Amino acid sequence: MHAALRGPSDYSQEPARHPSLRINAKEPFNAEATRRDLAASYITPVDFFLKRNHGPIPIVHDINSYYVTISGMIDRPRKLSLDDIKKLPKYNVTATLQCAGNRRTEMSKTRKVRGVGWDVCALGNATWGGAKLSDVLRLIGLPYHTEISPSGGKHVEFTSVDQCPEEKGGPYKASIPLGHATNPAADVLVAYEMNGEVLKRDHGYPLRVVVPGVIGARSVKWLDRIDIIEEECQGFFMQKDYKMFPPSVDWDNIEWSARTPQMDYPVQSAICSLEDTNVIVPGEVNVTGYALSGGGRGIERVELSTNGGKSWFGAIRYQKDGVPYIAGDITSDKWAWVLFKAVVDVKGDTEIVVKAVDSSANVQPESVESIWNLRGILNTCWHRVRLSTMHNLRSFL
Amino acid sequence: MHAALRGPSDYSQEPARHPSLRINAKEPFNAEATRRDLAASYITPVDFFLKRNHGPIPIVHDINSYYVTISGMIDRPRKLSLDDIKKLPKYNVTATLQCAGNRRTEMSKTRKVRGVGWDVCALGNATWGGAKLSDVLRLIGLPYHTEISPSGGKHVEFTSVDQCPEEKGGPYKASIPLGHATNPAADVLVAYEMNGEVLKRDHGYPLRVVVPGVIGARSVKWLDRIDIIEEECQGFFMQKDYKMFPPSVDWDNIEWSARTPQMDYPVQSAICSLEDTNVIVPGEVNVTGYALSGGGRGIERVELSTNGGKSWFGAIRYQKDGVPYIAGDITSDKWAWVLFKAVVDVKGDTEIVVKAVDSSANVQPESVESIWNLRGILNTCWHRVRLSTMHNLRSFL
Repeated sequence: MHAALRGPSDYSQEPARHPSLRINAKEPFNAEATRRDLAASYITPVDFFLKRNHGPIPIVHDINSYYVTISGMIDRPRKLSLDDIKKLPKYNVTATLQCAGNRRTEMSKTRKVRGVGWDVCALGNATWGGAKLSDVLRLIGLPYHTEISPSGGKHVEFTSVDQCPEEKGGPYKASIPLGHATNPAADVLVAYEMNGEVLKRDHGYPLRVVVPGVIGARSVKWLDRIDIIEEECQGFFMQKDYKMFPPSVDWDNIEWSARTPQMDYPVQSAICSLEDTNVIVPGEVNVTGYALSGGGRGIERVELSTNGGKSWFGAIRYQKDGVPYIAGDITSDKWAWVLFKAVVDVKGDTEIVVKAVDSSANVQPESVESIWNLRGILNTCWHRVRLSTMHNLRSFL
Repeated sequence: MHAALRGPSDYSQEPARHPSLRINAKEPFNAEATRRDLAASYITPVDFFLKRNHGPIPIVHDINSYYVTISGMIDRPRKLSLDDIKKLPKYNVTATLQCAGNRRTEMSKTRKVRGVGWDVCALGNATWGGAKLSDVLRLIGLPYHTEISPSGGKHVEFTSVDQCPEEKGGPYKASIPLGHATNPAADVLVAYEMNGEVLKRDHGYPLRVVVPGVIGARSVKWLDRIDIIEEECQGFFMQKDYKMFPPSVDWDNIEWSARTPQMDYPVQSAICSLEDTNVIVPGEVNVTGYALSGGGRGIERVELSTNGGKSWFGAIRYQKDGVPYIAGDITSDKWAWVLFKAVVDVKGDTEIVVKAVDSSANVQPESVESIWNLRGILNTCWHRVRLSTMHNLRSFL
């Protein structure tokens, strides 16, 4: 165990959290912002950024003796202090991290799935500051764009110091392909800042990995080790979780090895200015929310329907307020979500549906049935909110 | 006009074609294989590979004086002969090229679209032999992984010698981003071979571009010029065609500049062992076909349903006969389609539906309505074939 950074075994030393969070599990602590808090800003304040944990939050005892070990199938293993990492060129990358379980609660309504329940806010968009992993790996002799190391390594494994439950096999781990890790354009960071401030404990202090365009589960926090390994990480969260199964597979016929670990993710969108059911006064309703896609693919359009999908109209997309978003524009934040807004004139009971199309023309499925999976990951079906109008309400006000 | 390679202005000198092709337009010649011919092999024979043209097929008058001009925003323009290109390291890349209009005829049944009609065979999978474009561009001083040239160039434009109709503004052109062109891992080729033989005239002899993972329209044939340009190509086929519009846009309200040129494409699949309507003898029916996705994303699963999508079962996926396909396996052909097969026991009138999921968990839409677009591109909805059973037929045989 790392002496300067410890994963405690109980929950007596958790950090303080914002009181308005929606808590989905207390121990380990898993919480998301309310819809309105999340959609209020393009850059998600740290307080409202998804808290996703598998054990108690680690504690730094002595930041001056903290180091991350770089080892595995390499000639020259290294221990790098925080200062060593900070001496590398610093990059600020705005990237959305989305938990693969986002919108799981909705999937569970069709047929029960296992896992922490999440509404539509199991994600956040932050500006991460740190060194590029590709530069860290150059320090140990791996040039940019290395797919296989001289010793035959093809993956890079990140290991945390957190204490996950015993059945999950020790600290949290994940890996990404070496070619991804050594590609400077992939913007994989070893980050020490979030939104211009030192990382908070909940988000991986003192060092975490940020893998843009990939499900959040690969962005390991509280970094203890980076290892060059031959094949993908064999840890629980790569091999027995975060895999996408078809609807026909359930717990009695699951074969984990038949599927590959989920990395990239599909196009997604959700309405955040309304709950799933709402009672409103008839009139103009602001509809806002987010859309995003994996792999750096942009959002080509966001569309709304008030007749169940028979016809659609486009929403305004933006990343910076007042500046229309254009997919493929190199000044846009390629790894970040796109916010959208529209005004809908609601006269009577109405269902509003949203769906997005990414720059590869991928679409969201209409209903959850065809993408249902036993672990409840990647629910990306059209998001629907229902509005009941109270015609009398106006006279009360 | 290039003296050694000419785009004739009429159709009097077209090459011979296989008699079993399904001809969708004679002049310019546009044809696809029958479903059974296409699905009969993983590598598509040249004869059965999609023929997609916008004018008469160019003719090489003197291969020894043929050259391709590399110019634009660079310091050292070059003319490269075929031998110059062949002196560069040769790569063989197996890649599927799919016309964005594949399955257009089916889309047109919902609401009429403009463009050549295509069944489900407007694609082919070939092994292309040639130099990497990234190596060609190194010859003119652009290193690998260059996003912007020293002079500010951000795109690479390919120009053909073919004579497109006048309203389409001269020879066929397209561009891709410079970062894509100079990335050796993107496997963009300047190809002179197809399936181990010299390119045929229909497929771009003497030199063509092959851009794996991108709609076929960017893989320019009969190459005359490669230019480094500042912004994306302003030619007709980039700016006034091959863009994806929402269903609400029609010819009376189209604004071409509002959309970006389609490059990457979404997950797709189709059944090839059956026509859309079939009369069969009850019993076991072999269902085979293809699945593919853009951007090098693999195929995570292919599923069939015989009850309209209420339940699904998996099909066997393969690239090499007898070797199961595994998405993400580095020995698989990353840019190539995946074939599938299954046996369905058909007892009475049946609809068989196929859909695929790619490695990013992107899915095909259930119906065509939500992806209908006026140019009829990228029809990727679930593919359905109907079987009527003739219970009496057995007694006739």
